[in-house]
Amino acid sequence: MSASDPVPAGDPVVGIVMGSDSDWPVMREAAAALQEFGIAYEADVVSAHRMPDEMIAYGHGAAGRGLRVVIAGAGGAAHLPGMLASVTPLPVIGVPVPLRYLDGMDSLLSIVQMPVGVPVATVSIGGARNAGLLAARIIGSGSDDLAADVREQMLTFQSDLRDQAHAKGAALREQVARGLQD
Amino acid sequence: MSASDPVPAGDPVVGIVMGSDSDWPVMREAAAALQEFGIAYEADVVSAHRMPDEMIAYGHGAAGRGLRVVIAGAGGAAHLPGMLASVTPLPVIGVPVPLRYLDGMDSLLSIVQMPVGVPVATVSIGGARNAGLLAARIIGSGSDDLAADVREQMLTFQSDLRDQAHAKGAALREQVARGLQD
Amino acid sequence: MSASDPVPAGDPVVGIVMGSDSDWPVMREAAAALQEFGIAYEADVVSAHRMPDEMIAYGHGAAGRGLRVVIAGAGGAAHLPGMLASVTPLPVIGVPVPLRYLDGMDSLLSIVQMPVGVPVATVSIGGARNAGLLAARIIGSGSDDLAADVREQMLTFQSDLRDQAHAKGAALREQVARGLQD
Amino acid sequence: MSASDPVPAGDPVVGIVMGSDSDWPVMREAAAALQEFGIAYEADVVSAHRMPDEMIAYGHGAAGRGLRVVIAGAGGAAHLPGMLASVTPLPVIGVPVPLRYLDGMDSLLSIVQMPVGVPVATVSIGGARNAGLLAARIIGSGSDDLAADVREQMLTFQSDLRDQAHAKGAALREQVARGLQD
Amino acid sequence: MSASDPVPAGDPVVGIVMGSDSDWPVMREAAAALQEFGIAYEADVVSAHRMPDEMIAYGHGAAGRGLRVVIAGAGGAAHLPGMLASVTPLPVIGVPVPLRYLDGMDSLLSIVQMPVGVPVATVSIGGARNAGLLAARIIGSGSDDLAADVREQMLTFQSDLRDQAHAKGAALREQVARGLQD
Amino acid sequence: MSASDPVPAGDPVVGIVMGSDSDWPVMREAAAALQEFGIAYEADVVSAHRMPDEMIAYGHGAAGRGLRVVIAGAGGAAHLPGMLASVTPLPVIGVPVPLRYLDGMDSLLSIVQMPVGVPVATVSIGGARNAGLLAARIIGSGSDDLAADVREQMLTFQSDLRDQAHAKGAALREQVARGLQD
Amino acid sequence: MSASDPVPAGDPVVGIVMGSDSDWPVMREAAAALQEFGIAYEADVVSAHRMPDEMIAYGHGAAGRGLRVVIAGAGGAAHLPGMLASVTPLPVIGVPVPLRYLDGMDSLLSIVQMPVGVPVATVSIGGARNAGLLAARIIGSGSDDLAADVREQMLTFQSDLRDQAHAKGAALREQVARGLQD
Amino acid sequence: MSASDPVPAGDPVVGIVMGSDSDWPVMREAAAALQEFGIAYEADVVSAHRMPDEMIAYGHGAAGRGLRVVIAGAGGAAHLPGMLASVTPLPVIGVPVPLRYLDGMDSLLSIVQMPVGVPVATVSIGGARNAGLLAARIIGSGSDDLAADVREQMLTFQSDLRDQAHAKGAALREQVARGLQD
Repeated sequence: MSASDPVPAGDPVVGIVMGSDSDWPVMREAAAALQEFGIAYEADVVSAHRMPDEMIAYGHGAAGRGLRVVIAGAGGAAHLPGMLASVTPLPVIGVPVPLRYLDGMDSLLSIVQMPVGVPVATVSIGGARNAGLLAARIIGSGSDDLAADVREQMLTFQSDLRDQAHAKGAALREQVARGLQD
Repeated sequence: MSASDPVPAGDPVVGIVMGSDSDWPVMREAAAALQEFGIAYEADVVSAHRMPDEMIAYGHGAAGRGLRVVIAGAGGAAHLPGMLASVTPLPVIGVPVPLRYLDGMDSLLSIVQMPVGVPVATVSIGGARNAGLLAARIIGSGSDDLAADVREQMLTFQSDLRDQAHAKGAALREQVARGLQD
Repeated sequence: MSASDPVPAGDPVVGIVMGSDSDWPVMREAAAALQEFGIAYEADVVSAHRMPDEMIAYGHGAAGRGLRVVIAGAGGAAHLPGMLASVTPLPVIGVPVPLRYLDGMDSLLSIVQMPVGVPVATVSIGGARNAGLLAARIIGSGSDDLAADVREQMLTFQSDLRDQAHAKGAALREQVARGLQD
Repeated sequence: MSASDPVPAGDPVVGIVMGSDSDWPVMREAAAALQEFGIAYEADVVSAHRMPDEMIAYGHGAAGRGLRVVIAGAGGAAHLPGMLASVTPLPVIGVPVPLRYLDGMDSLLSIVQMPVGVPVATVSIGGARNAGLLAARIIGSGSDDLAADVREQMLTFQSDLRDQAHAKGAALREQVARGLQD
Repeated sequence: MSASDPVPAGDPVVGIVMGSDSDWPVMREAAAALQEFGIAYEADVVSAHRMPDEMIAYGHGAAGRGLRVVIAGAGGAAHLPGMLASVTPLPVIGVPVPLRYLDGMDSLLSIVQMPVGVPVATVSIGGARNAGLLAARIIGSGSDDLAADVREQMLTFQSDLRDQAHAKGAALREQVARGLQD
Repeated sequence: MSASDPVPAGDPVVGIVMGSDSDWPVMREAAAALQEFGIAYEADVVSAHRMPDEMIAYGHGAAGRGLRVVIAGAGGAAHLPGMLASVTPLPVIGVPVPLRYLDGMDSLLSIVQMPVGVPVATVSIGGARNAGLLAARIIGSGSDDLAADVREQMLTFQSDLRDQAHAKGAALREQVARGLQD
Repeated sequence: MSASDPVPAGDPVVGIVMGSDSDWPVMREAAAALQEFGIAYEADVVSAHRMPDEMIAYGHGAAGRGLRVVIAGAGGAAHLPGMLASVTPLPVIGVPVPLRYLDGMDSLLSIVQMPVGVPVATVSIGGARNAGLLAARIIGSGSDDLAADVREQMLTFQSDLRDQAHAKGAALREQVARGLQD
Repeated sequence: MSASDPVPAGDPVVGIVMGSDSDWPVMREAAAALQEFGIAYEADVVSAHRMPDEMIAYGHGAAGRGLRVVIAGAGGAAHLPGMLASVTPLPVIGVPVPLRYLDGMDSLLSIVQMPVGVPVATVSIGGARNAGLLAARIIGSGSDDLAADVREQMLTFQSDLRDQAHAKGAALREQVARGLQD
């Protein structure tokens, strides 16, 4: 299954939300990763600061609607992941979206430094693809058929990463053997 | 009127809220400043992450209950000031409370780097007294009797600051005249 | 009322000042926000370092001339907001203008870390629009007709923010339903 | 079930590992959280730098031994969480342990800034308790009986957090009513 | 001449000013250094934020009163050195005084990042003694008798530094020769 | 006198040195400032790391050759200003030159954080023009004719800065009066 | 010998490895430096996170295969240098490769802040050429013929650096003599 | 051989230098590590800023006196390691010594960010013991008997590290089995 296929069928088990559609170019990598694993997801704009009531409602309803993981991306004073984590028992993955200044350091600290009691699983600055892969790992940690399938795919995925790195190494060795001039 | 007097009588016009009672040793300085200006206030624990629904309700109701300014202190991934600002039309003052690590830099960035549309008036790390004084300036910027009274007091307050600095300068000059040994 | 209309009529109640006209591309967003709320303002170059005497005079005269809020933008070792706050009883809003290096972190710390007694209401790096909106909230916190009008407008403004976010969410959901390829 | 009870019976489903026993005072909070939820865990010293082969073996074997989540704490150039994530398909939670200098900023960046393909679910600096709670959320996101039970407990836990915050607010309101002097 | 002697006689040629007498424990090292070189100085509290008019007056009058260098120490949003530099043609040396949080990084940036046209000669965080020594170097760079005398003293001072370092090296070599156990 | 005129005649009293000719585009602003004040200077490449012996010799000889101030620019692990300060009794002004990464923060700390005994007068990141102006202030702090002349020029220079800022303010006020649309 | 010549003949004594071929544009400077000194090297992709087992094997085998120094470049949560250092007794040189955000600060801290017992010789951000030169110094510190040859070359190299700096100084002096206008 | 034994006999092959004897409590760990490996060393105070000529001489003479590695510790604007590297062809290891403020970040950047051509092998903040171990690895990378002996010892050292970590793991597992209460 490739990223250009339609959203996997079935009820979404992962919710991808972001504070603004301007975050989508970053966050779509999370969707693409889930798509590669055939995991149904939904994507939406849920702004902590522009639609706080709906944001709270989204969090309260997430588990009941069948979601098993929430991925939330936000930048600057990034409150969306932490606020959602406070109104759902589900694991929430936070993606620090870098803004124009500070290289995402403000986004990272606003997301990762949550108080005791309300964790957010934070990934790297701009790391939406890893957020999707982490959601896949979480789903794959379960005990049902979907979990077994995803876990199996993850092993294949990791094996592919290794093979690609091997191939890159071979190409580099060859290039160096020809000299540094090219 | 001194800080050891009871809370000024009358309906509170400033709400001082914080994520946990452990923030009170910092935040009480905001209360003390308001007390010095005779401005009625209320103080409460309103945690964005531990009681999100009540936090949202607090913000929605603030203006209707007669509050004119909200002061919110929080530390780490500090979401309280920004979330309140998203559910009230009132000015919200944010106090970055320093936690055990990072010297409050995470608190500061989580509060000040708000997205376009939802400002938080941020003061210095641990600067609760200045938050109280800023609330007084805001109330003093109005056009009613309370405003005129507070503005007058603020001028006196500033004049006192100057006098104290003068006195300190005089004492220092005297001390230096006696030599550096003591 | 839109941002392309002329400056709202009447005596200015907000003063927007900056250290150099090179800050205007950032600071004009504060003016535009006030204009949207129909709040009369003035804008001027008042440099703490190049015209210190006039800067002090500006601060001393601000309240007497009818201003109710001062917005000051500055970059690097940004002293303008804090110096004005020391010579006026009015609330002063500081806008950290980012310069070529350090992404505005120097501007932010120079503005927000004010000593006890002299608060500056600091907004985000480059956050001039939020400075304008904060001034509107401050004016809206008063008890006169202008306040009631501005507070009403602020509620509409917040409601519009929510509607726009909703619309963006709808568009995103639709786009995702068509697949990730576009 | 309280933190002073013995480790919950049954095969461990969460592995808590750390680079040195000096990390245990921080990491035991993860164990305590799991204990509160009745989730069986194991704890061990698995040093990326002092026993790299065993560390790799630990990661390769984790899923096969029945673990469903790995929690790894490390400080400074903290490689343990990321290295384990590279040899297991399970979700790995990283806890940045603060060392003597830099307040844990090095630990945080070494853990959270993982390359594309290998995510680590990072929690706050020193946030081991939140790591345990995040593991509980992950287990609770499954579809089996254990998941349902943990998810139920998590809702109760969140409700307790809210109640405690309420109680703190009540106490604070009372204290303030008595005046600021105590 | 030692630091416990009285202030050198004669009209002061260096002014040492600070925002508060709480800066004196740091700033007295500047005075002590000047004393060692027999350079007459004055010390005073001149707060940019608490007595802005007097601060401006101090700067305007400094050169006329015979001062040749101004040393200004301040912490946090440290505006004193830069503001004085804007109202005097004299060289102004800035000492970043570290406050409770941020280790003086805010003080440093607020002092050193001055805009084009108004330089402040910044020394290290808490580096008041170096400020005094820099003032001595500046006075020693002149063409009069005082300059020649101070320059001569500075060469002796540097030679003493070297001798002390030599002696420390000799002691260390001896200690190591006896073994590492003590 | 303008910056496009030849180097002022006479023996140089300021030495401008830098670690590499790649620093010249930054450092030439120091030369231009001195030129405006008619102060004779020399400029040279003196690398602490590539020609350490010559660098030491340059410092030892500076005062004897008639220099009164040394301006040194360097980037990254910027050792040139501090090393020169250790081998001359003259005031040394350090210019932190920003390199490709870290925005000059490494340059700034490497220059400003000098140990007790050896001060460097540090200006802002990339602030070579201010280094030239600071050298002018230092020369102007003396007691000879050159000093009186430079001090006089500095007052005119500051007055010009003020006039330019005034003119910018007037232009801005006019522009705003026409509306924000242009 | 110049960088465009083929890889020096003979068994490689330096291994240059990196996490991805995207690091090659940075890391090739290490290769070029070794080539200039006629030191045989190998270059390969060895990813800590994508091929952890092979990475461990590479480290274990390095000394036995005749390598005397390992140079490892990595970015972000950069674990390669430290992990290799844990499985080889050879000196490992770490090159912090800057990624899109944070200017390489994460890479630097992830590499340099190694725990007690497992050192990594860290060079500057993006400093691959210096890594090659450091490897040459290490080989030159030995007692065999290769060492003597490399040490001799290093002295010539340093002398060339000095000559180039001299030439740049001469050119700059000439340029300044013609005036600042060009 | 233990750290309390006398300095290993024979001509020193490693020079440990520092800017002041106040760095000795940090730097003695480098000496202790060398002692454990039976590597002869010398230790001295060689201050870049207080005895620059002697520092330059020390570097020029190091290789000729039989040293094979130089370890240099310094804090703040730490110039010693880089300056020594510019006057010796030997590998120089830099130890960032943390001072009172900034947690050693200034020391680290001043040492590691060396310009192209002059590398310093930097270890962690305060990481003197690792500096000693890195020197041992460098000596062990040679081709003579000493190298073979040190390399052998390093393998044993690494094996001991592993055994200690194992033992700590066993103790932790036992402790956890008894419950979390102690």
